[in-house]
Amino acid sequence: MAPPPDDASTPAVVIDAALLERNITAMAKSARQRGLALRPHAKTHKIPEIAHLQVAAGAVGLTVATIGEAEVFVDAGIGDIFIGYPLWVDQRAAARLLALADRARVTVGIDSAEGARQLVRSLGADARRVPVRVELDCGHHRSGVRPEDAVDVAKAAESAGARVTGMFTFPGHSYGPDAAAPAVADEQQALFAAEASFRDAGFRGLDVSGGSTPSAGLATGGILTELRPGVYVFGDAQQWELGHCRPEDIALTVESTVVSHRIGPPGTPGRFIVDAGSKVLGSDRAAWATGYGRLLDHPDARIVALSEHHATVEWPLNVSLPPLGSRLRVVPNHVCLTINLVDRVHVVRDGVEQGTWAVAARGRNS
Amino acid sequence: MAPPPDDASTPAVVIDAALLERNITAMAKSARQRGLALRPHAKTHKIPEIAHLQVAAGAVGLTVATIGEAEVFVDAGIGDIFIGYPLWVDQRAAARLLALADRARVTVGIDSAEGARQLVRSLGADARRVPVRVELDCGHHRSGVRPEDAVDVAKAAESAGARVTGMFTFPGHSYGPDAAAPAVADEQQALFAAEASFRDAGFRGLDVSGGSTPSAGLATGGILTELRPGVYVFGDAQQWELGHCRPEDIALTVESTVVSHRIGPPGTPGRFIVDAGSKVLGSDRAAWATGYGRLLDHPDARIVALSEHHATVEWPLNVSLPPLGSRLRVVPNHVCLTINLVDRVHVVRDGVEQGTWAVAARGRNS
Repeated sequence: MAPPPDDASTPAVVIDAALLERNITAMAKSARQRGLALRPHAKTHKIPEIAHLQVAAGAVGLTVATIGEAEVFVDAGIGDIFIGYPLWVDQRAAARLLALADRARVTVGIDSAEGARQLVRSLGADARRVPVRVELDCGHHRSGVRPEDAVDVAKAAESAGARVTGMFTFPGHSYGPDAAAPAVADEQQALFAAEASFRDAGFRGLDVSGGSTPSAGLATGGILTELRPGVYVFGDAQQWELGHCRPEDIALTVESTVVSHRIGPPGTPGRFIVDAGSKVLGSDRAAWATGYGRLLDHPDARIVALSEHHATVEWPLNVSLPPLGSRLRVVPNHVCLTINLVDRVHVVRDGVEQGTWAVAARGRNS
Repeated sequence: MAPPPDDASTPAVVIDAALLERNITAMAKSARQRGLALRPHAKTHKIPEIAHLQVAAGAVGLTVATIGEAEVFVDAGIGDIFIGYPLWVDQRAAARLLALADRARVTVGIDSAEGARQLVRSLGADARRVPVRVELDCGHHRSGVRPEDAVDVAKAAESAGARVTGMFTFPGHSYGPDAAAPAVADEQQALFAAEASFRDAGFRGLDVSGGSTPSAGLATGGILTELRPGVYVFGDAQQWELGHCRPEDIALTVESTVVSHRIGPPGTPGRFIVDAGSKVLGSDRAAWATGYGRLLDHPDARIVALSEHHATVEWPLNVSLPPLGSRLRVVPNHVCLTINLVDRVHVVRDGVEQGTWAVAARGRNS
C-alpha cells in the first residue's frame, strides 16, 4: 500500500485505489471462473463509487443489510439489490420497498412463515413485486431456519402470496482459525439438503446464495449459484490474521498520530498511544485476535488496549519507540465498522491523494 | 423510563428527557455540595441541547476529546472547553485552536515536554492564548505522565512559552467490579503528589481535575477542584452492571424489533434476534460484562452474540419468546459508542415524542 497523505488531520481513513481495484478484480475473476454470480455485500464499504467498480468488474448486483442501504445504492444507480436480512416488514418498510421496486430489482430475506405473512400483509396486492429468499442457518446459529424447515417457510410464503426466488445462508462460523473449510462444508451440506426439498416441492430455478470473505475462495461451484463476500474489497486485520488476505493486499488503513510515550522499566517493552481509538476502528475483537487491530508496517507490534480515542501499542523489546508526532497506519480488526464511523474517506493512488469519497450509506441502520 | 415511540423505524436511539434532566441535576447537585466544579465530558452525548442543560444546571464548561468536538460546542455557544487529550499540535491544529480561542476559553492537555514544545512551536506568539493542563497517569496506564514526572513537564512547558493552568487525570481503572473506590484512592494519591511538587516549583491556583462516572460519586473534595464524568447523563449497561446507576435511571435505549426466533431443544433456553447490532450498539464488551448490552425491561435476558445488525438474545428458560415484530429496549454496554453511530436521537417525555436532536459532534474524531 502506498504511503498515505500527510496533510490530513488524524485519525483519517485512507483507501489505496490500486489495491482496492486489484481486490475487486481478483474476486470477480475467481467467481467467474467457477461460474458463480458475485453479489458483494456493500455494508463493508457503503460507498457508491466502490459499488460501481464492483458492477463494472462483473458483479450481478449488491447485497445490503438494510432498506436504508438499499435506498442509497438504488439512488446511485445500482439496478439489482438483495437485502440479505430477515426483515420484519411493517407498513412504513413496505412503502419504502415498493418505492425501491419501482426503480430496481429488490429482493429481501425471510426466515419464518410469520415474517413472510407479515411482508404480504404490508405489501398487499404488490407482494410479488418484492421477491423473497429464505435464509437458512448452516451452522453460524444467528438468524435463518434449519435447512430441513426451509421448504415449509417457502411454501407458507408462496401460499400467503409472496414470490420465492431463492435461498441464502451466511457461513459466519468461517471467521476463526482453520474454520473456513469446515464452514464451507457445512454451507454446502445445508444448501444441498434445502435445495433438494425445494425441488421436491416444485420450486425451480432458485438462486442459491452463500459465501463470506473467508469462505469465498474455497467454495466450489457445488450447489451455489452466487457468492456474497464483503470484506475482500479492503481486507482487515481479521482477514490478515486468519490468512485470508496478505498485508500487502490491505486497501484501507487508518492514518494515526503517536501522541504519548510510555517507557517501561528495563527489560519490558515500551508502549505508546496513537489517536485512533474505538470511535474510528470499532471495538470488535474476536477471542483469537492478537489485539485490537494491527499496524500495517510493524507486524511485530500489538494493540493491547483500546478506548474511544486511544490505542495502546506495545512495541517490540529493545526497539526505539516511533517519535511523538509520527504517523502510523493502523489496520482495523473489522473494516465494516470503521467505514461506518466516518463520513468521508481519502483516496490515494501511488501515494498521491486523488480526493475523497463520501460514505453515503454510513449510519443507514434501518 | 417511559415507553418509546412506536412509529420510528428500528433500530432507533431514544432519550427520555425527564430522566436525562434528573441525571444532570443530580450530578450537578452532588458536585456543588462537595465544592467541586463540574466539567462534564461531552464525548458521551455530542449533542448541544444536552450541553446547554448541563451548563444551565451549573457546569462550568465542557470536556471534549478532540478539536472537532470543541468546534461543534463552541459553535453552539459553549464558552469554556477543555480538550482532555494529549494533543500533538501541528500547524493545522494550531490554526483551529486559535480560531476557537477567539471565541471561547479553550484549554488543552499535554503529557510530555515534547508535546508542549510542539504546541508552542505551532502556536507561535499566541502560545499563551491556549493554556495547558498536564495529564497524569493515576493507574489506568493509558496516556499521562507518572505523577512524579508531571512537574518536569509543566516546567518544560512554561520554559517553552506555554501557560500551565492545571493538571488532570482519568481514573479509567474505576471501570470494573469493586474497582471504583481503589481507583479514587489512586487518583487522590497521584494528584496530591503532583500538586505538591507543582506548588514547590512555584505554580499556584491550578485546576486539579479528575473523575469518571464510576468514581464521581465517591470523590471527596480532597485535592480535586473539578470532576469530568461523562456517561452519567444517560447511564448504560456497564454502569448498571457495576452498580453506578439503576435501570430506572437509564435515559437512553435502542428501540429494536424482534426479527427471528430460534426455539431450542427441550430444556434449553430459546433465543431470538433483534435488529440492533454493533452498528448501533457498538461492540465494547468488558471481561466482566454479562453480555453485549442488556434489555431494559427483561433483566434476566442476555445478549450472547452481536454482529453488525443482529443481537442474539438468550431468553429465560420456560418463558415464551416475545413475538416476531415486537419491540424491545436495548441498553448498550457503552453509550458513548452508540451516540457516535447515529445522526439523530428521538426525544420522548412521558412517552410522547417531542422531536429529535442532531448528534452534532458525531464522527468528529479529529
